[in-house]
Amino acid sequence: MTVADRWLLPDGIEEILPGRARCAEKLRRDMLDLFDRWGYQLVIPPHLEFMESLTAGVGHDLDLQTFKVTDQLTGRTMGLRADTTPAVARIDAHTLKVDGPVRLCYAGSVFHARPASLGASRSPIQIGAELYGHSGVESDLEVISLMLETLAQVDAESVSLDLGHVQIYRLLAAQAGLSDDQELELFDALQRKAIAEVDQLLNQWGLDEASGRMLKALPHLAGGPEIIERARGEFVNAPQGVAIALNELEVIAREITSLYPGTGFYFDLGELRGYNYHTGVVFAAYLPDQGQAVAKGGRYDGIGEAFGRSRPATGFSTDLKALLELKAESTEDCTGGTTIFAPADADAAIVQTLRRQGERVVRQLPGQETEAAGMGCNHQLICRDGEWLVEPL
Amino acid sequence: MTVADRWLLPDGIEEILPGRARCAEKLRRDMLDLFDRWGYQLVIPPHLEFMESLTAGVGHDLDLQTFKVTDQLTGRTMGLRADTTPAVARIDAHTLKVDGPVRLCYAGSVFHARPASLGASRSPIQIGAELYGHSGVESDLEVISLMLETLAQVDAESVSLDLGHVQIYRLLAAQAGLSDDQELELFDALQRKAIAEVDQLLNQWGLDEASGRMLKALPHLAGGPEIIERARGEFVNAPQGVAIALNELEVIAREITSLYPGTGFYFDLGELRGYNYHTGVVFAAYLPDQGQAVAKGGRYDGIGEAFGRSRPATGFSTDLKALLELKAESTEDCTGGTTIFAPADADAAIVQTLRRQGERVVRQLPGQETEAAGMGCNHQLICRDGEWLVEPL
Repeated sequence: MTVADRWLLPDGIEEILPGRARCAEKLRRDMLDLFDRWGYQLVIPPHLEFMESLTAGVGHDLDLQTFKVTDQLTGRTMGLRADTTPAVARIDAHTLKVDGPVRLCYAGSVFHARPASLGASRSPIQIGAELYGHSGVESDLEVISLMLETLAQVDAESVSLDLGHVQIYRLLAAQAGLSDDQELELFDALQRKAIAEVDQLLNQWGLDEASGRMLKALPHLAGGPEIIERARGEFVNAPQGVAIALNELEVIAREITSLYPGTGFYFDLGELRGYNYHTGVVFAAYLPDQGQAVAKGGRYDGIGEAFGRSRPATGFSTDLKALLELKAESTEDCTGGTTIFAPADADAAIVQTLRRQGERVVRQLPGQETEAAGMGCNHQLICRDGEWLVEPL
Repeated sequence: MTVADRWLLPDGIEEILPGRARCAEKLRRDMLDLFDRWGYQLVIPPHLEFMESLTAGVGHDLDLQTFKVTDQLTGRTMGLRADTTPAVARIDAHTLKVDGPVRLCYAGSVFHARPASLGASRSPIQIGAELYGHSGVESDLEVISLMLETLAQVDAESVSLDLGHVQIYRLLAAQAGLSDDQELELFDALQRKAIAEVDQLLNQWGLDEASGRMLKALPHLAGGPEIIERARGEFVNAPQGVAIALNELEVIAREITSLYPGTGFYFDLGELRGYNYHTGVVFAAYLPDQGQAVAKGGRYDGIGEAFGRSRPATGFSTDLKALLELKAESTEDCTGGTTIFAPADADAAIVQTLRRQGERVVRQLPGQETEAAGMGCNHQLICRDGEWLVEPL
């Protein structure tokens, strides 16, 4: 084991150094304060849970992404959370047991056994908000608005909003009479946007002509606002829920445009990627020149059922580390303010008083050679005529 | 798998619910702000590292306490940090490479495969501060003072400070000519305060009379300030470093008494418990009616050597969750302030404006039955003569 090996961090596992960590802390506070102003209450879910709790009702992908450890006390398998939402849903469903709407938010590390995409972090600081107990489009709208406000905190302009609706796929698949296995297989192909494979599967299963045509149309229904009208044409024979879903998307685009006029829209009715436990409206925010979504979320009604109480739910999350990359603000801006250098011979009681008054004071240690400026100080405590004074450097 | 099983958290793994989580966040901010006023810069070390990095130079106990996972990308064993200090020391030694004093602080979860003591949390939120690059007693003093200021944040009065000095044991063991194995065995017996076993080991090894007597005296040198004088008597023939160590303890007690007059002192020269990587002054803060230390720390020079650069170091840490238990403050105190209920038909633009002005506004959702007060609101947005006004409930 060489010295070089010892400080090597695993791929996708990052540390945040002084200066930058201060910016991260400031951003974290700004975001939690924003959530607070919207009435979202902070919870701190555990990082480690038994696997049964972590993956209850949330699909297979999350299981594969989860680091597993054995609990020495019970011999059971625990997992490091790869996503905070299931734990928050459990808190709403099982612990809080409120009937009306519940708004919760969180900020904390999640861990991915495999990076979610090439070069992605395996330890994002996930920060997000969830709204439980309301199934109308108004709660989706609230959560999307909060996501846009969050991005405004990092001066993210020209957000493009991708909108989809998982219910459209689910209803079409149900009407087509797909078996569970077929539904999974088709979901997987659609997730990968493997259009040829989708067509092949649908041809091979010999569905009725209308169902096959509508499912085949799904991955092609992507683009600007005209997509909604085109979908209405394609889906005249679909279950009524499909028309309702299209209306919801239209309402969201209209209301968001009125509150956040700069927002761009991209509708993608076949979009299922990464929405394993979602059941309704799904959305993702993109910025210019960013290949990955900076924030995403959607409706996931019923996730609490595994914990004994089915509740409507919608929410979004983002990665504090990724947002930090976007933030133009320099280190200086985060540090800011006065930093006073106190020489080693300064009276300890005076230093104590200054700090209690809210001043930042860095104490020189005996024998220390680093100068005040080298310690990041812009002021100094100095003795003039027997009195200790704070002066600019 | 029943519903009851799914929400069961593993022993010693806690979640923090609304209200309480808000208090935890406030305490976290207060403490990081305090560290900032003392010139300690925040770092965010990784939660997961290769085992070689996590345990470099910090002893066997930490290894046993560490949850291990296999890195799917490399096949190497990674550990979940059980203590933040080694990672911070690595950042100082390897990444920052500053010659003068470096002050760093951190706040984040650590994970213990086994609870550190019966009934202890296995997922404390460790928060602490470290001072690198200075070997004098002044830096120990600064760190102890900061620990006492930290406890003052939770209104912890009547702190009793346990003081020890690992160097005394190390020097006596070296003078006695103990082999590495013997030194470890004796350290272990002393750690467990197994006095009979200590005596038996020392008798059996046939050390010279003076060395044996001094080592046997160690576990009995515990008590008030008179202990220092008694130790000076016992250790007249000890290496000179022992007298220096005793002087350091005396200086610390004197200076702390002058800055924090209410502090009680308990000297324990045989105290080695939990100080696996420490090399000098060690300290722990106790509160009345609390069996476990609420904060502890000490000097651990040279830990950075494993990362290519040996640096003097001293620091302390505490558990935010444990401090939260102590904090008398009720949930109401943390929440505080105005919360405005906005009816479902209120103008979205007005709600947006209020929030941007810093107000906390909870939006009613269509069909919602919960009343304003049930949502924790004490004000409401109400339309009078065509104008929206904020009024107390």
